[in-house]
Amino acid sequence: MRLKFRPVDSSFYDLFSEAAKHLVVGSQLLSEMLSDGNSKAEIAQRMREAEHAADETTHSIIRRVNSTFVTPFDREDIYHLASALDDVMDMMDEAVDLVLLYEVTSLPAETTQQVEVLQRCAELTAEAMPSLESMGKLDEYWIEINRLENTGDKSYRRILANLFSGEYEALEVLKLKDIVESLEGAIDAFEKVANIVEQIAVKES
Amino acid sequence: MRLKFRPVDSSFYDLFSEAAKHLVVGSQLLSEMLSDGNSKAEIAQRMREAEHAADETTHSIIRRVNSTFVTPFDREDIYHLASALDDVMDMMDEAVDLVLLYEVTSLPAETTQQVEVLQRCAELTAEAMPSLESMGKLDEYWIEINRLENTGDKSYRRILANLFSGEYEALEVLKLKDIVESLEGAIDAFEKVANIVEQIAVKES
Amino acid sequence: MRLKFRPVDSSFYDLFSEAAKHLVVGSQLLSEMLSDGNSKAEIAQRMREAEHAADETTHSIIRRVNSTFVTPFDREDIYHLASALDDVMDMMDEAVDLVLLYEVTSLPAETTQQVEVLQRCAELTAEAMPSLESMGKLDEYWIEINRLENTGDKSYRRILANLFSGEYEALEVLKLKDIVESLEGAIDAFEKVANIVEQIAVKES
Repeated sequence: MRLKFRPVDSSFYDLFSEAAKHLVVGSQLLSEMLSDGNSKAEIAQRMREAEHAADETTHSIIRRVNSTFVTPFDREDIYHLASALDDVMDMMDEAVDLVLLYEVTSLPAETTQQVEVLQRCAELTAEAMPSLESMGKLDEYWIEINRLENTGDKSYRRILANLFSGEYEALEVLKLKDIVESLEGAIDAFEKVANIVEQIAVKES
Repeated sequence: MRLKFRPVDSSFYDLFSEAAKHLVVGSQLLSEMLSDGNSKAEIAQRMREAEHAADETTHSIIRRVNSTFVTPFDREDIYHLASALDDVMDMMDEAVDLVLLYEVTSLPAETTQQVEVLQRCAELTAEAMPSLESMGKLDEYWIEINRLENTGDKSYRRILANLFSGEYEALEVLKLKDIVESLEGAIDAFEKVANIVEQIAVKES
Repeated sequence: MRLKFRPVDSSFYDLFSEAAKHLVVGSQLLSEMLSDGNSKAEIAQRMREAEHAADETTHSIIRRVNSTFVTPFDREDIYHLASALDDVMDMMDEAVDLVLLYEVTSLPAETTQQVEVLQRCAELTAEAMPSLESMGKLDEYWIEINRLENTGDKSYRRILANLFSGEYEALEVLKLKDIVESLEGAIDAFEKVANIVEQIAVKES
């Protein structure tokens, strides 16, 4: 899966794009998990593979920072952006993992909206990464990610209200709350990526 | 509400003071929410407005960093401080939001102590922001914020112990725990602001 | 306890080693807490002392950054590493604190594995701190910490699955979940320390 994304001579921009593409895969797996008739175990396995591929990309970036004398922007910023992209994958992986771990068979309807937000965030982030080279058109990306984060937050709150409406028993609430919080955490992690990109642009401007 | 705080030609110090003043408003709204006879919905609405005003101040700071050639201290530090101040508001907003969302009618008594700590932290932070210009008298501010954070932590732990003492049923514990955790999170966020101010002073010294 | 670790003329490397040694003490106290026949209250008291000693070391580092003109590496990095080491102690202290607070008498068996991971992480971190001076042999440290974090994560997930298997009632799940999450949080905090050390090495390289 990784090779598909990985050009022979990859620059930092290529590696960041690669990292973001792993997140597109991850968000697609989340949406597969929500639709019936899919093997959750098989999806969890593919998510684990995507997560490992993302880890390798992260380490390629760190290794390249080590071995490169001149970097396109501050070494620390490269490091922060790489870790932030990695954090998104970890949160998406956690969500899938908890569904399996808690043996949850059905999720609240609004989780679909959370996952749609995650898919859109992943696409936007994958589109934004190449723009790091020119630092162009990044404002639209931040603004849209922030708008999506607000949408996701509304869904998250509606889910919480429903969980506590009395139709679920406490243990079920605990399980489902952990899962929707992972999804919300993944959305927030996308916003953090956008904030770091914003910081880099601020410094490079 | 914002205009009240916003001088015509505001410097970075003015903007940080403005950001801190939004937190004073937020902490006051929290204390109003705890006293009986107030409309929680109306308070939540005013908190939302305060939160939006705080967001605008944060973005004014970022825009100014973009458009200013010489900044009083590192661009990244300005960015970090602005985000940290914004995080406090988000946590206070979350607390109010959860009270409404979970339809909680009465909170544990000690939440009053948490909110008193938040009000004191907000006042101290608002007083400290102008001192960033001279870097003077900031030690007292850090020390006092840390002392307050410890006080808040003690209240938080007492509340947790009571929640699990058996008088509350599981779902109620889940709801109240989320709310007191948001309040504790807001206090921790004030400590993080103080730590960033400390870092800035360390670097400028 | 602090004096034991604190050389008369301590350099930054000595202070970081000292900070890491407090974590070795903390992880040992956690393992004592898990073995029967120990007074949890007495262990919590010793943990509090270790936590205060760790705070003092953190402040010694900050003070030294203030009073030193030339620092071995970036002031901010020294600050970040000091805070990250402090965070580990806070998480370990929280775990012990919650056991007492929630009056938990028996913990899931796998918490032993989490604490073993914490003890190993503490030892590795204490061994790595002096290497900051030469920046040597740090790769092995990162790799091993990351491997341990994965092991800890597996134990953590097994515990969660068991907690929700139906044998525990909701309130008990809430209590135990908080405690195992603190332990997991302490392991993650060790990984964060390793990541900061990695960042420093990246910059100094």
